[in-house]
Amino acid sequence: MNIVKRICSIVIAFTMVAALSPAQAQDNAAARAAREWRTAHERQILDDYFAFLRIPNLSRDLPNVRRNAEYLMQAMDKRGLKARLLEVPGAPPAVYGEILVPGAKHTYVFYSHYDGQPLDPNEWATPPFEPVLRTARLDLGGQLLPFPAPGQRIDADWRIYARSASDAKAAVFSMLTAVDALNAAGLKPRANIKFIFEGEEELESPHFAQILAANKELLKGDLWFICDGPEDPSGRLTIKFGARGIQKLELTVFGPKRPLHSGHYGNWAPNPALMLAQLLGSMKDAEGRVLVENFYDGVVPLNAVELASIAEAGNDDAQRKELGLARVDGGGKSLGELINQPSLNIRGMSSGRIGEQAANIIPSTATAAIDLRLVKGVTKEGQVARVIAHIRKQGYYVVDRDPDDATRLAHPRIARVVVSADGYNAVRTPMDLPLAANVLATARSVRSPIAVQPTSGGSVPLDMIVDVLGTETISVSTANYDNNQHSNNEDIKLLNLWNGFETHAALIMME
Amino acid sequence: MNIVKRICSIVIAFTMVAALSPAQAQDNAAARAAREWRTAHERQILDDYFAFLRIPNLSRDLPNVRRNAEYLMQAMDKRGLKARLLEVPGAPPAVYGEILVPGAKHTYVFYSHYDGQPLDPNEWATPPFEPVLRTARLDLGGQLLPFPAPGQRIDADWRIYARSASDAKAAVFSMLTAVDALNAAGLKPRANIKFIFEGEEELESPHFAQILAANKELLKGDLWFICDGPEDPSGRLTIKFGARGIQKLELTVFGPKRPLHSGHYGNWAPNPALMLAQLLGSMKDAEGRVLVENFYDGVVPLNAVELASIAEAGNDDAQRKELGLARVDGGGKSLGELINQPSLNIRGMSSGRIGEQAANIIPSTATAAIDLRLVKGVTKEGQVARVIAHIRKQGYYVVDRDPDDATRLAHPRIARVVVSADGYNAVRTPMDLPLAANVLATARSVRSPIAVQPTSGGSVPLDMIVDVLGTETISVSTANYDNNQHSNNEDIKLLNLWNGFETHAALIMME
Repeated sequence: MNIVKRICSIVIAFTMVAALSPAQAQDNAAARAAREWRTAHERQILDDYFAFLRIPNLSRDLPNVRRNAEYLMQAMDKRGLKARLLEVPGAPPAVYGEILVPGAKHTYVFYSHYDGQPLDPNEWATPPFEPVLRTARLDLGGQLLPFPAPGQRIDADWRIYARSASDAKAAVFSMLTAVDALNAAGLKPRANIKFIFEGEEELESPHFAQILAANKELLKGDLWFICDGPEDPSGRLTIKFGARGIQKLELTVFGPKRPLHSGHYGNWAPNPALMLAQLLGSMKDAEGRVLVENFYDGVVPLNAVELASIAEAGNDDAQRKELGLARVDGGGKSLGELINQPSLNIRGMSSGRIGEQAANIIPSTATAAIDLRLVKGVTKEGQVARVIAHIRKQGYYVVDRDPDDATRLAHPRIARVVVSADGYNAVRTPMDLPLAANVLATARSVRSPIAVQPTSGGSVPLDMIVDVLGTETISVSTANYDNNQHSNNEDIKLLNLWNGFETHAALIMME
Repeated sequence: MNIVKRICSIVIAFTMVAALSPAQAQDNAAARAAREWRTAHERQILDDYFAFLRIPNLSRDLPNVRRNAEYLMQAMDKRGLKARLLEVPGAPPAVYGEILVPGAKHTYVFYSHYDGQPLDPNEWATPPFEPVLRTARLDLGGQLLPFPAPGQRIDADWRIYARSASDAKAAVFSMLTAVDALNAAGLKPRANIKFIFEGEEELESPHFAQILAANKELLKGDLWFICDGPEDPSGRLTIKFGARGIQKLELTVFGPKRPLHSGHYGNWAPNPALMLAQLLGSMKDAEGRVLVENFYDGVVPLNAVELASIAEAGNDDAQRKELGLARVDGGGKSLGELINQPSLNIRGMSSGRIGEQAANIIPSTATAAIDLRLVKGVTKEGQVARVIAHIRKQGYYVVDRDPDDATRLAHPRIARVVVSADGYNAVRTPMDLPLAANVLATARSVRSPIAVQPTSGGSVPLDMIVDVLGTETISVSTANYDNNQHSNNEDIKLLNLWNGFETHAALIMME
């Protein structure tokens, strides 16, 4: 593309982002059909969704993951989507379905995932795989509701609590419900529509590239819609042009070979919890800026259109207050800007025990689970190398397994770094992609104004789609922002589920 | 005591410490009687001890703690010790027994405890309350042994694995076995002998002062023997003239009100695990010296006799190597010197989760469990105030409960500090105490050379004995130093159990 053409595209895209006329709202026949269907079937829809949420879906729980896949096969078949499983040995299957349209100009692939994040059931107010309705958000006093009686009014502010209620069974279920609505209204897609629901996204999709490679022709398309993630806190329909990549690692430092009595050895035996604290503490400054050398090197800056879309973003300050934070990291930059930077986050940290289970010991090891989020221009291998170099700079001898006695006695400070095998890089789809205008216009015809983001803070395995299939991706996020995804007491607000039906119906009907 | 007399006493005590003539070894009739009894009854003794260890004894598990007390009542009655329970409401009972000797010049009180430290059974190689024998230390390849058949040779290098095998059921059981041996040999104590076995020492003895106050006349004596703790790593019989005090506290720092998706919020929402790491990291330097202001102020220095006794201590370097440590804290000072200093230890640290249970979140809180060890001249209240002042200096607003919304929004950094109600101060008994010479001579007549320490690194509630009863204490430690006490896979070496019988028999027979 020559430079003039590119600048024109940017100007056009910028205009699109800025043109948030509410006049276009509700101007979409498919979205209207979805609303009519939903209004007439709310109770039945909830009943169906509860049945789906009742199937446990932890990514490593293969028997139950397979039960989810079977549920989806049946759900697709019922809707005429010609379901099949796309499998590689030892991995959860991806569930595939399609609506092929003779003479279609385009093929759109709708991606989501049906597996869920690890959890500790003790941290949940109600069991994670026994969905319940509440009047409002749990921490704001939401009360349990009995399942609605036939004819009872269902309030769009109610929430469903269950693992994956938002992430991402909501999107999977929305697409299926959208197909119901379109079928009922006699609306037939104009493009070829393909659905693929992955079963191990929460493990960083270790087998998904294989599945893509084995089904290249089937899964190629003009565009993949990544249906996952929360909408902007403003509640606007949210379109994202990319996602951060992710690389996880686990860092362990070593004290005495066995835990020691803290009285008899305190002041003499080095405490690995303290060593880990000092090591982690060295990685960031008081404003949360990462101090690992070169950590931000190579980051591809946002262009004018991308920056403009960020400027449209939600109200950080309202979120900050709602989260009970008197200050945030980032030295005054907005959340929208900050998720376009690489991050280093402590997901978990553990040494010895706390609370009533704590014992008076000097622990033997201390471990931190870390996730590195990646942006365009920063690779997973590169970021890991920088972090390891930083650990070495703090005087640590770095190993990738438990040190033996000789290693222990040769090195005063030892850190074991185990790099997760399944990281992936960031993707940022150009906002001036020809089909982007179509997507944005469709979104606006559903519900205006919309929010447009160059990058989702969260990660989805977009890089393998681009690398293996050569297909660009655009993400459509419909869950409420305050859904506790990845944590305990995950929820979906009914309004977001309802809105999702309309959004997905409209996109399925795109030309 | 005038100064000349005091100096003489110090010189005498110093001479005693230095006089480690092996010629005196085995020169004790009571110890010989204990050895004969043990040699003739090893299998029966093990069987009895296993039965005691099978009774779960976590301090908070009151029903089982009471079963231990009942076991001890029966064991005392069988030996003619006129057992009774000393109780205060809501607390584990102390078990008391006595041998009163008409015309006795002295009264000696033998203290130990029968409760055990908290544990996680998943961390144990075999269940903590199902004692087993092993050929050697577990981590050095010790193999499981069946319970010895009648007549089978029992090796003194074998170890028993169970919670409290060392700490402190070994001492309790040793005293009872010593009474058996003395009874069998027809040896009658010359002093009044009183036994008191506490049931909540591992919770820092929250009710023990009450028990002492309610039984002041009964429990007063010329000297309390504190029978607890590990011997010097050299394997010498170990006499300690005091113990560090302890004060525990739990420190929690706060991030967002609910855990957040680390992708969508990473770089923006402050991570409490990182904040805690930086806060803990600020408390010590790279050599383990505490950086909390005034932390070492007021420490009463060791006198010449005390310093001399430390110089006799074990081989730190052999221990260091055995523990797999290429370096130790303390800037070159010996373990013996370092346990005569106050300490700050991280007992446990937790935020989010690690391993396969880790989720991609920014945690909501991060917590560290800390124990402060105290020495003479440093009080529990004083040390806590210094630590809190340090936390404030790092920019934290300190609270003693979970912050409400207004507090959260008013303070950028909030630390909750919960101070344990049951700390106690250090005690150091003067080495020139008149009865000390008698005790040291008796110990040397059992097994020479002995190790003499001014302070045990570990803590026992000596301060309340001195404060409430006005009685001085001397500690006698007989467990193997490498017993994993307070941790998983706690053990006692049979040699140490055997030696304990002899030591306790000799002390019970002291004039």
